[in-house]
Amino acid sequence: MPKIVQCVPNFSEGRDLDKVEKIVSVLKNKKGFKLVSYEPDSDYNRTVVTLLGDPLKIIDAVVESTGIVLELIDMNKQSGEHPRMGAVDVIPFIPITNVTMDECVIYANLIAKKINDKYDIPIFMYAEAANKKNRVKLPNIRKGEFEGMKDKIKEEKWYPDFGKPQIHPTFGVIGVGARIPLIAYNIDLDTKDIKVASNIARVIRFSSGGFRHIQAGPVYLDKRGHVQVTLNILDYKKNPIYRIFETVKMEALRYQVKVTASELVGLLPKDALIRSLRYYFKVNRLEFNKEMSLDNLTRYAIEYLKFRDFDKYKIIESNI
Amino acid sequence: MPKIVQCVPNFSEGRDLDKVEKIVSVLKNKKGFKLVSYEPDSDYNRTVVTLLGDPLKIIDAVVESTGIVLELIDMNKQSGEHPRMGAVDVIPFIPITNVTMDECVIYANLIAKKINDKYDIPIFMYAEAANKKNRVKLPNIRKGEFEGMKDKIKEEKWYPDFGKPQIHPTFGVIGVGARIPLIAYNIDLDTKDIKVASNIARVIRFSSGGFRHIQAGPVYLDKRGHVQVTLNILDYKKNPIYRIFETVKMEALRYQVKVTASELVGLLPKDALIRSLRYYFKVNRLEFNKEMSLDNLTRYAIEYLKFRDFDKYKIIESNI
Repeated sequence: MPKIVQCVPNFSEGRDLDKVEKIVSVLKNKKGFKLVSYEPDSDYNRTVVTLLGDPLKIIDAVVESTGIVLELIDMNKQSGEHPRMGAVDVIPFIPITNVTMDECVIYANLIAKKINDKYDIPIFMYAEAANKKNRVKLPNIRKGEFEGMKDKIKEEKWYPDFGKPQIHPTFGVIGVGARIPLIAYNIDLDTKDIKVASNIARVIRFSSGGFRHIQAGPVYLDKRGHVQVTLNILDYKKNPIYRIFETVKMEALRYQVKVTASELVGLLPKDALIRSLRYYFKVNRLEFNKEMSLDNLTRYAIEYLKFRDFDKYKIIESNI
Repeated sequence: MPKIVQCVPNFSEGRDLDKVEKIVSVLKNKKGFKLVSYEPDSDYNRTVVTLLGDPLKIIDAVVESTGIVLELIDMNKQSGEHPRMGAVDVIPFIPITNVTMDECVIYANLIAKKINDKYDIPIFMYAEAANKKNRVKLPNIRKGEFEGMKDKIKEEKWYPDFGKPQIHPTFGVIGVGARIPLIAYNIDLDTKDIKVASNIARVIRFSSGGFRHIQAGPVYLDKRGHVQVTLNILDYKKNPIYRIFETVKMEALRYQVKVTASELVGLLPKDALIRSLRYYFKVNRLEFNKEMSLDNLTRYAIEYLKFRDFDKYKIIESNI
């Protein structure tokens, strides 16, 4: 069986669609891996790209796309709702089939070295690939963002893992990591009041007392005209989607605000969906058939978790 | 203004009510402090006593009651649902009025020294009074319980803070601490199935991925014939009662189990009640008057949080 990893580079451009097309052009129609999706977000000014396939083929292509980004994006002129420290902000590797986490750490180090050698961009290793304890959590590294990194990187504590302690003047720095599948998940609230999203984010996220494996923050979506709680589920087995979704609904009640929908950014493993749908089936005294088709899983996810803009190709297993 | 602390000694006897009466006799009708409540629990085989008042007067009386316990309880013959390591299992001090946490740490050390000098019982300091990082959390110290402590205390890592590294042969050891008001809270489930309580406890407690300031476990109440989730809320500002109560209700749905009631062990601060009732008032679009009487707070707590065996004297402020 071939080795399959998921690689999810995040690019700091989500508005100029011509630029986005140029960046992903070298990731499309390649042998050995699949470009599963790319989702430019104009509020975030960021595009999350999901690749699935042969790790070495993915590495070469992502190195190539980084070269295109270097020409197209100047971080001194970039802004958006999402925190960022580089034009390619992060490159995480996730083991999927026939690959261990240790191997993903090796792939992460491989691409980090290649990018630094070729473009002189400093790299920070994070999550399972972190070399220092305070670099395990990406937000620790990214704190201060592109603007603050100019000085931060000069402190010995924040010397990069690859490269000189000096940001690339237009590109910034990159975080390269290895991690278990993280679910990037947003919950829509039917209000324009950012304070409501902010209060609810505080309830669920670990850093202010909430669930242990949840990162969350508020965001206002200008185009859509409402706020959302944007969150990462770092361990969907311990903090399943349904529990977070239901807790947000419970908290929203006090503001008389409706939870209208939720959305995934990138993919999620089938197992994550099963663990949540099983809850709703049990609540409704329905028999859950864990062999159900991906089409049915998709249908029920839309029904119970109110997923919007969702189709079965958001489930990792649909793409293998 | 006088200094007022709360002190909540836990005695490892909840079945023999004659013995319980003897133990609390020296805590009743004393000048300088009030015996607010004592609650023998036969399933737990434990009595939680709540004292409120002058710290030095409380210290003398608790030292005296420890002497009575030493004569009455033999831990080699004691068993119950609640983990325990000594005949007086824990003695925590909680700052209430005109007293700082640092002062409570001093009171904790004072009583620890007195008890050890007088009865040769080894003492472990915990929570804010801990001298070592691995002793901050009481369950770390108590792990292995009375039976395991015989050997554990001989490891240098677990030498007691007061006394020789050798348990008292019939009494065991005591944990003495200082802490913010902790809410000991149990939620009744309408089932005899301990697995349901166990699964739900796992969802909400920090150690297995739940809320950051929650400790929880399952317990079967033989006398009452149902299980409950027994929990400590270590920080009621960050993890308010209502949120835990509602999350347990949400999880119970999947087992088709009803949450029939909840109960406090010991007291809770008025502020904790206000923070939770405010949620239900907001959900129901009612105006919350934070100056409402303790009688009204009590009434609404019973209505919304389904508190059973509750009266206003469970609110700390009713006793001052």
